[in-house]
Amino acid sequence: MSYFDHNATTPLAPAAREAWLHAQDDAWQNPSGLYGIGARVKVRLEAAREQLAPLLGCAAARVVFTSGATEGANAVCAHLARTLLPGTLVAVNRTEHPCVLEAAKFFLGERVVWLEVDGNGVIATGQLEKLLASKGVGAVVVMAANNETGLLQPWRELARLCRRHHAAFFCDASQWLGKLPAAGLGEADWVIGSAHKFGGPKGVGFVLAAEGAQDFHAQHGGGQEHGHRAGTENFPGVASMVAALIEAETKKVLLETERLHWRETFERAVSTALPGVRMVGAGAERLWNTVSLILPHGENTRWVARLDKRGFQVSTGSACATAKDGPSHVLAAMGCSPEEARRMIRASAGWETTEMDWTKLVQALAEVSVEVKPAEAVIKI
Amino acid sequence: MSYFDHNATTPLAPAAREAWLHAQDDAWQNPSGLYGIGARVKVRLEAAREQLAPLLGCAAARVVFTSGATEGANAVCAHLARTLLPGTLVAVNRTEHPCVLEAAKFFLGERVVWLEVDGNGVIATGQLEKLLASKGVGAVVVMAANNETGLLQPWRELARLCRRHHAAFFCDASQWLGKLPAAGLGEADWVIGSAHKFGGPKGVGFVLAAEGAQDFHAQHGGGQEHGHRAGTENFPGVASMVAALIEAETKKVLLETERLHWRETFERAVSTALPGVRMVGAGAERLWNTVSLILPHGENTRWVARLDKRGFQVSTGSACATAKDGPSHVLAAMGCSPEEARRMIRASAGWETTEMDWTKLVQALAEVSVEVKPAEAVIKI
Repeated sequence: MSYFDHNATTPLAPAAREAWLHAQDDAWQNPSGLYGIGARVKVRLEAAREQLAPLLGCAAARVVFTSGATEGANAVCAHLARTLLPGTLVAVNRTEHPCVLEAAKFFLGERVVWLEVDGNGVIATGQLEKLLASKGVGAVVVMAANNETGLLQPWRELARLCRRHHAAFFCDASQWLGKLPAAGLGEADWVIGSAHKFGGPKGVGFVLAAEGAQDFHAQHGGGQEHGHRAGTENFPGVASMVAALIEAETKKVLLETERLHWRETFERAVSTALPGVRMVGAGAERLWNTVSLILPHGENTRWVARLDKRGFQVSTGSACATAKDGPSHVLAAMGCSPEEARRMIRASAGWETTEMDWTKLVQALAEVSVEVKPAEAVIKI
Repeated sequence: MSYFDHNATTPLAPAAREAWLHAQDDAWQNPSGLYGIGARVKVRLEAAREQLAPLLGCAAARVVFTSGATEGANAVCAHLARTLLPGTLVAVNRTEHPCVLEAAKFFLGERVVWLEVDGNGVIATGQLEKLLASKGVGAVVVMAANNETGLLQPWRELARLCRRHHAAFFCDASQWLGKLPAAGLGEADWVIGSAHKFGGPKGVGFVLAAEGAQDFHAQHGGGQEHGHRAGTENFPGVASMVAALIEAETKKVLLETERLHWRETFERAVSTALPGVRMVGAGAERLWNTVSLILPHGENTRWVARLDKRGFQVSTGSACATAKDGPSHVLAAMGCSPEEARRMIRASAGWETTEMDWTKLVQALAEVSVEVKPAEAVIKI
């Protein structure tokens, strides 16, 4: 397996597949049905909620099952737009995922104040503290881990800072969940997650709604999800997602230290093999699975194609913002030039990725480097 | 199988299950990936769009895959609210599904003009023609088939009427699809459907967007679904949904006449077995699978529980608007009293339901009738 694009999507974990099939066989009925089997599906749906909540450290009543993180981002931003006092501002991290950025721009428009990041991509806490002290900010939007760079934001501290200033904290945990322990994420007022980023199926996710947000409605219609999201509940999808996250939390995240070591070994080897290469966010804490490289030469799309020929799938950044959208907004916020951003590739491993896969990726990168080396560089050598 | 609640949800069809598993095995990657397998998933996703469109008689570019009909209803109503000229009204059928009703109320608010229905639940075309002639109506919202009664609306005529008057026609086809031929539905400007109502998985559906509605966005974020819906595409879900609909269109809907005959036989038998029973919408064309009965006596929830004990799952109306919401808005619009509505049960068959299942349901109803008969009625006899 040389698939290095787990931040785009992951294969379905065996436990998730089994849970989905099991639910399709004996719990496919509508949980709103008034007959016994409907009630039993409802009980299992609520049990899934009760299993998910303690992983994040929050009350089950805050869990709203959705179709994924994009729905969640749209619903939370729409809710903030509807419920924040007129004139209240919303501070949004510039390096958020496109679904959060676009939803914030669409629903919050001119209420958005952009939060800057440093050269590693870490949020400027000083700027945020000043904004919060000015009392004009009603909500803060900062992700847990960046999808393009793996950069970890200090979300625990941000959640507490926001609480002290009575501002709502909205945290997109899509890339954190299943890779690092979820414990404590419930301290954020609003959290979104997506099953297919951690071994669950596509088309399922969740929102943790803020305490007391009775008027939060991801979709209007029937009274499903305790009134928070209309639409027939996708119990097979939910059961599958929860199975994937439980497996990740109980078996996988414990391996973090070992996997971080593999990533670091890879980074050292790449630095030797590709002189002039640069690790994005090298000076900061990042996910164990993600490496963003600014290559020494050549457009990233040429590298992606040549690595693909060798059996390695990597990306040029977010699958939600591919080449046609221009250079990465994440790298731009970190001070990279558009030219540098066009030389960026991202390798994102999974739990099934081996140390040998990383080693082979170094070798493949070295080979591709020779192929895409510009003529003048060859002449210089 | 004595499951008579197919209008709430259907079991997953074997072809749909197979398509889902197949896609999970070899097409689970992100269609936005720039490597070969990502591109191949993208090709298969577009092929699914090309397969779905001709079933409804429209261009593939109009198909936007969603998480279900509720998302679709919300997205279409939000789009109409955003794009119709100020002051333009939207005529909405009173007997729509709760997801359309609530989305219309939320997004369109005071722009909604309610369309009345006759005693069978059929839309009052005369009222609609007058409204359209007044030039103040920019859109018309009428479902293809009613979820509670199975009543078929004259959507073909309505689509043409709206076209003549330059009003957009939005048709919720959730209960029509997979039960009757989809051909021609593409004549409506906006159509929504939900996979789990026709043997596909939960959490998947589609919108047919109006020609030229480039600014339609079901969700904001990345550029997926040709810019119409952000979020990683759920290809396994889409493949499964399309497999279910193709199977229904090529093998199942052909059996309509036979199944209609079974329903009519059932209705005659019930009329004999339960003196005083009334078929809702008896005087109009209805889905072959749906019978709505106003029982001669007793609260419907008592009947549902007693039928359940005998192995028959039926409902009291829409699973999205159960007992706690009060008597059915559909029956109220048709002139039924709240007391009558509380005596309504719905039996909705599937393609796997047999003639014998219908026969046994009559017998079960007769038995339950004796059990729930009020004391004074027994005395009178």
